[in-house]
Amino acid sequence: MGQQLFTIVQDGGVTTPRGFKAGGLHCGLKKTDRNDLGVIVCEVPAAAAAVYTTNLFQAAPLQVTRESLNEGRTLRAMLVNSGNANACTGAQGEADAREMQARMAEALGVSKNEVAVASTGVIGVLLKMDKVNAGIERLPSKLRDDAEGGEQFCKAILTTDLVKKVSCVSVTIDGQQVTIAGAAKGSGMIHPNMATMLGFVTTDAAIGSELLQEALREVTNLSFNMITVDGDTSTNDMLVAMASGLAGNRELTRSHPDYEAFFAGLRHVCQELAKMIARDGEGATKLIETSVVGAASDEAAQAIAKTIIGSSLVKSAVYGADANWGRIIAAVGRAGVPVNVNTVDIRLGDILVLEQSSPIAFDEDVALAYLKGDTIAIHVDLNMGSGSAVAWGCDLTYDYVRINAAYRS
Amino acid sequence: MGQQLFTIVQDGGVTTPRGFKAGGLHCGLKKTDRNDLGVIVCEVPAAAAAVYTTNLFQAAPLQVTRESLNEGRTLRAMLVNSGNANACTGAQGEADAREMQARMAEALGVSKNEVAVASTGVIGVLLKMDKVNAGIERLPSKLRDDAEGGEQFCKAILTTDLVKKVSCVSVTIDGQQVTIAGAAKGSGMIHPNMATMLGFVTTDAAIGSELLQEALREVTNLSFNMITVDGDTSTNDMLVAMASGLAGNRELTRSHPDYEAFFAGLRHVCQELAKMIARDGEGATKLIETSVVGAASDEAAQAIAKTIIGSSLVKSAVYGADANWGRIIAAVGRAGVPVNVNTVDIRLGDILVLEQSSPIAFDEDVALAYLKGDTIAIHVDLNMGSGSAVAWGCDLTYDYVRINAAYRS
Repeated sequence: MGQQLFTIVQDGGVTTPRGFKAGGLHCGLKKTDRNDLGVIVCEVPAAAAAVYTTNLFQAAPLQVTRESLNEGRTLRAMLVNSGNANACTGAQGEADAREMQARMAEALGVSKNEVAVASTGVIGVLLKMDKVNAGIERLPSKLRDDAEGGEQFCKAILTTDLVKKVSCVSVTIDGQQVTIAGAAKGSGMIHPNMATMLGFVTTDAAIGSELLQEALREVTNLSFNMITVDGDTSTNDMLVAMASGLAGNRELTRSHPDYEAFFAGLRHVCQELAKMIARDGEGATKLIETSVVGAASDEAAQAIAKTIIGSSLVKSAVYGADANWGRIIAAVGRAGVPVNVNTVDIRLGDILVLEQSSPIAFDEDVALAYLKGDTIAIHVDLNMGSGSAVAWGCDLTYDYVRINAAYRS
Repeated sequence: MGQQLFTIVQDGGVTTPRGFKAGGLHCGLKKTDRNDLGVIVCEVPAAAAAVYTTNLFQAAPLQVTRESLNEGRTLRAMLVNSGNANACTGAQGEADAREMQARMAEALGVSKNEVAVASTGVIGVLLKMDKVNAGIERLPSKLRDDAEGGEQFCKAILTTDLVKKVSCVSVTIDGQQVTIAGAAKGSGMIHPNMATMLGFVTTDAAIGSELLQEALREVTNLSFNMITVDGDTSTNDMLVAMASGLAGNRELTRSHPDYEAFFAGLRHVCQELAKMIARDGEGATKLIETSVVGAASDEAAQAIAKTIIGSSLVKSAVYGADANWGRIIAAVGRAGVPVNVNTVDIRLGDILVLEQSSPIAFDEDVALAYLKGDTIAIHVDLNMGSGSAVAWGCDLTYDYVRINAAYRS
């Protein structure tokens, strides 16, 4: 996986790459006094890229951000509110998203197309714009280029999340140290397809927006698009990346000798964030990692890995530490891709439970002890070809139901 | 829906149609003394039809039954065990299914290809054939042609089901009273695709096996294939129909003036059974009925109805009596079919919550009172075309998780 190509930056965050400041505050959209408005600002125009939800009902801020990025390929700021998704809010919702963008641009002294806007929270309720506008006025005074600035931003984007989600690595390009950082939020309505819940990537690499867009798309397919919490694809999923170029490397191209290191670093950051989202899935107590090998193609392996990770029965069994591999094979069989029904091997961690599609006697106590851990690996080998994929999810618990039975109330 | 074409037979069951006996007993596959082996027997060779799961890993009894029905198109008996699915059990599992078939045939004095076999329960464990064989020996003495026989059979096919699932109607064909009855089981791993959990239909109509097969297939697509409990398609889904022909009507054809009545009756029986399965979904407290109209096609409407009914977030919200229509519109938007995002209406029962894709203010107290009922109707009008569909499901509750966290233990 190229781990040697990058170094993990402990305690790094979105303000670690050169040129970035961040901040957050409570403007009044959340009922408690938790942060609900945050911004990341770059001191120079940053090359920018974004991927969006495939849900047909895209929230207003996504439409506004997409439109702006189509006009110019640089960003100076990413503004986010939590507590209200500004989705299915009609013409007023779109006007509100545009107002957020324009006011933030004015407060920062940049052009409005250089401000991306994002929202997360309840669907179908108009934003309280008096509170949002007052918050935007105060935001510039909160900007810091240190860890505290990144921390306040990360708090501002959470909803039902229990923990902040940040990852940071450094890579060497042209002998220069380049940093790549990301922050994300997401806990429920997680079944990203071509995009994710809210994710924000900052880097000081010099890279054009076109190549950044391609890299972001490829990495998304190996990270955020391979997680599921509940099979529900949000109206608000968006991942935005900004590259300040202040690291001093020659501009990256696909043939640049260090492009592979940049890509590996970006992939690591996004996969870490994706796993953090899966582990912090609503009500979750465990991270489930499903790897599928020996498939006819990578696409087939992806379909199977995501079907397993999405199975309510598999998720419930993992919660109960029940080595119920029958539910895994049933998921393999309904994934909609070709499978040789006689050659499937299944392992739970290192424990072989099915070989060539026949049950293998295993020590139930050993399996129970393994399944009581907080990270559960499910390995499926189809023994058909060379296709492979990894997907991440979480267990299904009482708390998932409790949280979602009363989210809006 | 043609309700006037048939009459509901109160307290009718699989032994109500002329020519059928049924019975059940406890042979020892279930840990408690509940029935776990049952059979329906016809006194004459009955025209037969069946549909099977689309899961690639089909259980051994399905393979055996399919093979037998391919050789001859009549059945004298349908034998079922619960407590063990006999799925993913390799060559020994297939031999066991054949032995069950052969011993039941011998005990009844019929040929083995005239016995369908079915199993439901845990996957990947070999059947205790000594117990099954002893049970088969005793089964003929348990056969009765009254309601008690049907009752004992129905009990024998249940696993995590809480209630028996039976439906019976009568229709008039050629002036003769024809009865159609069905029994089913299913509570978890319910997301049938071209077939269902175990379902058994008996009728005394005179109808050839070919037309019966066509009717069964068409009706399945309007009933069992439109329910979901948890999105997991079982390895054992099977629906079998037997027609004794003892009602005395002229053999049905598609052009027979009363074929429509027979079809309407069969559809009613299967839809009632499907709704009973959805309402009795593992842990469920409510039946959810989703109707989609105004779609570009019936197929598009089906995709949307099943996406809504399968959404964990929608299911959790219904459990919590939360009028969270944002989750419904999010499901509409990710169903993978074309939708005009500006023209969607949504109603919860009679309460309009979204019109032309814009939120409508509604009385939360009235909505809460409605959502606290035990049957929740979700109506979606896409205002695009004339496609429509109805799907059924249930809420997602703490008990679903409890049941499935420890099913195998």
